[in-house]
Amino acid sequence: MKFTINRNLFLDNLNNVMRAISSRATIPILSGIKVDLSNEELVLTGSDTDISIEIKIPVSDDLTVESTGSIVLPARFFNEIIKKLPGKDFSFEVKEGLQTQIASENSEFTINGLDANNYPRLPEIASETAFEISGKTFREIINETNFAVSTQESRPILTGVHFVFNQAKIKAVATDSHRLSQRIIDLENGPQVETDLIIPGKSLVELSRIIGDQDPKVTVNPGDNQVLFVIGNVSFYSRLLEGTYPDTDRLLPTTSTTTAEFDRASLSQALDRVSLLTHAGRNNVVKLTLDTENGVAQLEGDSPEIGTVEEKPWAKQITGQNLEISFNPDYLQAALRASITDTVIMNFTEPLRPFTVVPGKEDVEFIQLITPVRTY
Amino acid sequence: MKFTINRNLFLDNLNNVMRAISSRATIPILSGIKVDLSNEELVLTGSDTDISIEIKIPVSDDLTVESTGSIVLPARFFNEIIKKLPGKDFSFEVKEGLQTQIASENSEFTINGLDANNYPRLPEIASETAFEISGKTFREIINETNFAVSTQESRPILTGVHFVFNQAKIKAVATDSHRLSQRIIDLENGPQVETDLIIPGKSLVELSRIIGDQDPKVTVNPGDNQVLFVIGNVSFYSRLLEGTYPDTDRLLPTTSTTTAEFDRASLSQALDRVSLLTHAGRNNVVKLTLDTENGVAQLEGDSPEIGTVEEKPWAKQITGQNLEISFNPDYLQAALRASITDTVIMNFTEPLRPFTVVPGKEDVEFIQLITPVRTY
Repeated sequence: MKFTINRNLFLDNLNNVMRAISSRATIPILSGIKVDLSNEELVLTGSDTDISIEIKIPVSDDLTVESTGSIVLPARFFNEIIKKLPGKDFSFEVKEGLQTQIASENSEFTINGLDANNYPRLPEIASETAFEISGKTFREIINETNFAVSTQESRPILTGVHFVFNQAKIKAVATDSHRLSQRIIDLENGPQVETDLIIPGKSLVELSRIIGDQDPKVTVNPGDNQVLFVIGNVSFYSRLLEGTYPDTDRLLPTTSTTTAEFDRASLSQALDRVSLLTHAGRNNVVKLTLDTENGVAQLEGDSPEIGTVEEKPWAKQITGQNLEISFNPDYLQAALRASITDTVIMNFTEPLRPFTVVPGKEDVEFIQLITPVRTY
Repeated sequence: MKFTINRNLFLDNLNNVMRAISSRATIPILSGIKVDLSNEELVLTGSDTDISIEIKIPVSDDLTVESTGSIVLPARFFNEIIKKLPGKDFSFEVKEGLQTQIASENSEFTINGLDANNYPRLPEIASETAFEISGKTFREIINETNFAVSTQESRPILTGVHFVFNQAKIKAVATDSHRLSQRIIDLENGPQVETDLIIPGKSLVELSRIIGDQDPKVTVNPGDNQVLFVIGNVSFYSRLLEGTYPDTDRLLPTTSTTTAEFDRASLSQALDRVSLLTHAGRNNVVKLTLDTENGVAQLEGDSPEIGTVEEKPWAKQITGQNLEISFNPDYLQAALRASITDTVIMNFTEPLRPFTVVPGKEDVEFIQLITPVRTY
């Protein structure tokens, strides 16, 4: 196996494959990257068993093949070496005993490779039920929900985002049982058959990075316990969470007794300051008081050791009954960070019932739910 | 005590005082910053006992005094609060029971203060032997030597840089007994009496940051076991290391049998790549082979697990006897980073004797010494 390749071209693709490499690989060969060369293309593969990434680089002026073959190289070192090599191109040659020589200009590395025959095979996923969606839309809905997944393994199903794709819409829901985020976005040419997928939050983080800031087409290939996303020359495989996702629709309140509309930035900054003290205390709880007669909202936080803080974020409108409610400021901060409108509307019923945060704009189908904290 | 001040003005000064605050303060009151207000100025003080910083902000349009007084506030929180406050100005008022109110716009903090009477006094240092030096020169000589101080407390004297100031020169030396760096820079109007100071490396790091990128005048006030540096409105006190610094002059070799001149950047990049493997191994040793007949230098490194690397950094000139020598690549890398010329000259005697790294320019008085490693 021997080839010469443009270093930047290789590095861009290698960086994407690295997203599948875990620093705590349990199977030793998975701390490596498989490099597989045919006369048509070079294929890089990385996997941590939950996520697998396969990238194809076609033969071109930037990739010259001398002889084909396969090898597995230690991912972290391989990546560092390529990053630091001098010169525009480098050569790659597997010699006797899986010894792999990587050379450019006056620099020459000889790295101990592993036998590619021992590298696990990627699942085969039939593309009969595949459909295409916009990368930008997919990244947006990930950003708006994924932060709310559970990080606790006690209820594994909650560590994923529940997606329902149909011909006209995507609906995504995530909850860690303290807060919930649900977003619905219109789709053109969604799947003919409604498709239900629970995708691990960690997979979505990496997928979102690979989609990047552009708007590439993403082909979704749902399998039995795996899903394959194809984005350009990248094939991204993720494990699916198995089981039934809880029925979250029934959690969403349909009425409210107090409503307040806030400027998102000003509420977020006030929360940031209140959190300086609540994070230092033991409970991390902020108290929100809504005075509907005077249209005044007040946030209070304290840390017995450090002191107290009072904020009066500017409220555009407060209606309904007066209210005093306590909650974890981090949940509201995360909800505001995910929000995409200049103002948000908070709808309350009772001090111990969950409240909602929705956009200050009617045509955006986005609802977030936060459970308050009992402070007495 | 009550005043109103421009937030950015206050924050710039507070950031400098924060450099004296240790996250592991052993005396509780030293986790705080003292705020002391007279009718003329506001004085901020921070200390970790090794370093103390006092900054004076004179009364102006940006600082209005209503009543004078003193208080100590928890440094980390105080700094975070001021950083995140809204508005251009904020007000500061000490109320009953040392409760301190910090307010701007719709934000109001009440912080538990400590009694300023319990804050330790700063040393008094007579200014009879004071002298002035250029901040730029002082920062330069710190950067060129301080990296070589010892981080081990087994020989405390080696954790500082040894400075000798006279009327025409500063000489600075640091060594951790494995490598040494000595720099001499010309001085205009140095002290009349030769002044010998051993300043802790950690103090010099913070002092260098306070000097900043400009060229402020630095007044050096040597005391008995403390030194005071005055830079603009900042007074920076550092503990001095007591004892006799080793006579390092006798360590510097006066002859050499092999000499090689390298391009600094290309040698540094080659070392960086070799280190990828030597850092992964147990010994972190690189072997340098100098072939004087062919004018070729070769660096080799290996990690039994990962593999081997060979680099041939471009040598401008190699003269004398052939040589094979092994050393810790991090010491040479640090020496190159501190170097200020495009080329460096390395002078060797024997494989087990220290070698020197000097500038590829005759008029720069800068010598670094590195002890090799025995590999057999």
